[in-house]
Amino acid sequence: MRIVDIIRAKRDGHALSGDAIDSFIRGITDGSWADYQASALLMAIVLRGMNAEETSLLTDAMVRSGRRVDLSSIPGIKVGKHSTGGVGDKVSIVLAPLAAACGVVVPKMSGRGLGHTGGTLDKLESIPGFRTALEFDEFIAILRDVGCCLIGQTRDIAPADKRLYALRDVTATIESIPLISASVMSKKLAEGSSAVVLDVKCGSGAFMKHHDDALALARSLVSIGEAHGVRTEAFITSMDTPLGTTVGNALEIGECIDTLKGQGSADLEGLIVRLATRMVQLAHPATEEAAAEAWVRAALGSGAALEKFRDMVVRQGGDPRVIDNPDLLAQARSRRHVEAAATGYVTRLDAEAVGRAAVMLGAGRDRVDAPIDVAAGVTMLKKPGDATKEGDVVLVLHYNDEHQLNDAIQLAESAIAIGPTPPPSPPVVVGWVHARGETSYV
Amino acid sequence: MRIVDIIRAKRDGHALSGDAIDSFIRGITDGSWADYQASALLMAIVLRGMNAEETSLLTDAMVRSGRRVDLSSIPGIKVGKHSTGGVGDKVSIVLAPLAAACGVVVPKMSGRGLGHTGGTLDKLESIPGFRTALEFDEFIAILRDVGCCLIGQTRDIAPADKRLYALRDVTATIESIPLISASVMSKKLAEGSSAVVLDVKCGSGAFMKHHDDALALARSLVSIGEAHGVRTEAFITSMDTPLGTTVGNALEIGECIDTLKGQGSADLEGLIVRLATRMVQLAHPATEEAAAEAWVRAALGSGAALEKFRDMVVRQGGDPRVIDNPDLLAQARSRRHVEAAATGYVTRLDAEAVGRAAVMLGAGRDRVDAPIDVAAGVTMLKKPGDATKEGDVVLVLHYNDEHQLNDAIQLAESAIAIGPTPPPSPPVVVGWVHARGETSYV
Repeated sequence: MRIVDIIRAKRDGHALSGDAIDSFIRGITDGSWADYQASALLMAIVLRGMNAEETSLLTDAMVRSGRRVDLSSIPGIKVGKHSTGGVGDKVSIVLAPLAAACGVVVPKMSGRGLGHTGGTLDKLESIPGFRTALEFDEFIAILRDVGCCLIGQTRDIAPADKRLYALRDVTATIESIPLISASVMSKKLAEGSSAVVLDVKCGSGAFMKHHDDALALARSLVSIGEAHGVRTEAFITSMDTPLGTTVGNALEIGECIDTLKGQGSADLEGLIVRLATRMVQLAHPATEEAAAEAWVRAALGSGAALEKFRDMVVRQGGDPRVIDNPDLLAQARSRRHVEAAATGYVTRLDAEAVGRAAVMLGAGRDRVDAPIDVAAGVTMLKKPGDATKEGDVVLVLHYNDEHQLNDAIQLAESAIAIGPTPPPSPPVVVGWVHARGETSYV
Repeated sequence: MRIVDIIRAKRDGHALSGDAIDSFIRGITDGSWADYQASALLMAIVLRGMNAEETSLLTDAMVRSGRRVDLSSIPGIKVGKHSTGGVGDKVSIVLAPLAAACGVVVPKMSGRGLGHTGGTLDKLESIPGFRTALEFDEFIAILRDVGCCLIGQTRDIAPADKRLYALRDVTATIESIPLISASVMSKKLAEGSSAVVLDVKCGSGAFMKHHDDALALARSLVSIGEAHGVRTEAFITSMDTPLGTTVGNALEIGECIDTLKGQGSADLEGLIVRLATRMVQLAHPATEEAAAEAWVRAALGSGAALEKFRDMVVRQGGDPRVIDNPDLLAQARSRRHVEAAATGYVTRLDAEAVGRAAVMLGAGRDRVDAPIDVAAGVTMLKKPGDATKEGDVVLVLHYNDEHQLNDAIQLAESAIAIGPTPPPSPPVVVGWVHARGETSYV
């Protein structure tokens, strides 16, 4: 089958065969497809879609483009976790040691921040010495000994995904549920977990702005995982407001440590406990939800989760003194307050605007190869629902470089809305998609 | 405006601004757009379309990517001509000298054959010595002295179109009325004519298989030309059957010479006279149709058109002896007859199948850089409507290389249908689109 005929078939709305999809993925890996042919097909996929079978075949081809991690030497059910990315989303950094403290093995390969959303690797690397580029052997050894390990994707995990993602980023072909699904699930399947819990973010600060899209993505992800024999569940969670009280790498690590000490904000802790509970149930299927949650809360309250975190930090080369003394984390030289313009209740704190303001302060990057300032970011002293007086500090901007400070202040101010009455407080978890059905919490 | 935002806008179905279109066309000319970005936008255009204004802006940007020929030193109205390409379409080679013999100046830049359709340049180059790669000065001098000159596009005519076409060919983004329109009209506008007559082919052997598509393309082409101040008309003509009696380069030159001598087949001569009549009327707007047609027929009957052809051949370096002795044209070493399988009437002689059979014999190319055999081709002894007896020769295949002969024979046989009654004989010209309206002849 000629390349141009494969592109034409999708352009004309036909389903692609497994051979055609294999040709595409092999082609972008070995160079037999030119980038301009791959991008034409990507755009045709964005506009014509792919059915569930095609998406599953695409995922499978992407897994086969590289290595699939063999975790069979580690006993027990390995439960992976992935978030589609949000503002202030530091969940994995707390969740992995928390689940590990409950006997779950959590292998986790993470990404870096791009655009207004942060990345787990950047956050972890704000712990002095922390290494995220480990070889497989070390990854597996830490997983076996500690129960969790957070690293970057190695070059041989779904290499086709890396090439495709780079191409999609510069050709406006990111926004496609089949392509996003195959990208996420190829990495999760290659990671070697037996089960996966997904956090599909939905709202202004998420990739999926609308509930329908988030639901469609969640269904697609679950369908692919289950088709590959991996028990897969997806929570749809709100991302209209940043999660927790901080945005920015070192700031978020500080918040993670607080959370592991039982001093986390209600929204962040609530989401982490919910996800950890499901991970415990997936690893120990006989456990009832209430018992699993009690186990999780005990691991948090007892300091067991914090100790798992400490073990992981030490094994990955990080300086564990930051745990007892978070002041050792990088701190920005300058701060600027953003105050409430009126008296009343915070009715909105827009996640995307706060995330973009943090990027302007240096906390993130718009290009994959741009440097970041781990100390920069935003602290949120008020969240939606909180009462405020005119002049109260709502946000604190942390920065070293004031190059884009004024733009960041403007954006941060625009993120805040204040009204005379408290807004309704929707739950953080709004939906749950799993092999046996779907549950909506709104 | 970032490149990715331009691609995204079209992906999401928005109209592109002039600035966005300029960025695209400048970008593919100067390399500031990567090919993979151009192909993603091309696919988005194929699937989302472009409105008339965008198409006109795209055409304009493509004209400005290179040089626009200045024919103002030549007095009178210059009338260009273009065909969207068909099988056995040798119209330009007769039409240009015929119109020139009636006082019309005909500047004509042509292309090469690709796929199952032939190209005027390849046909002309089967005249020994004929040069199609002329500099502007020589082109203009011949136009001034002879009244017609047929050359290839120089490198500086719409260079963006050349790059775009090469990319479209390998990314399944050829089939788009806005892209086809901009490609055709950018070259016609750059050619410097004051008026243009277009021949939009429709049928099995044409790019446009269906009348609706051909009509839409004709309207788009006329709309662009008129928007640029060039009087533009388009005839929609049938391409279900090859035009005339020959397919193949030297064979078609022989047929052109016969036609210029008044011995052409009715379908070919009829179409040429019709187009020439309109060209005469566009160059001499006071002339009535009947008078213009009489002038054209007189130029054909008197040998004046043949003398113009001879002048052009001589000035372009060709051997004029082929005009008096067509046996000097290349002839294939071998021939094979394809006979009627039944007695009755030829009801169909499929243009695409005959065209593809000719390519298999060596007359055409499937890749732009492939060599061709000017002597190879097909002679049609019977056309639809002709009575035939079983065993009568319908087609003669001319070839030097028998590499794909059997496939060519099979294809040629499949092109012929014979039935008990003569088929209806639809006109060659089925529609006419011009600034004042549209006329349908079916």
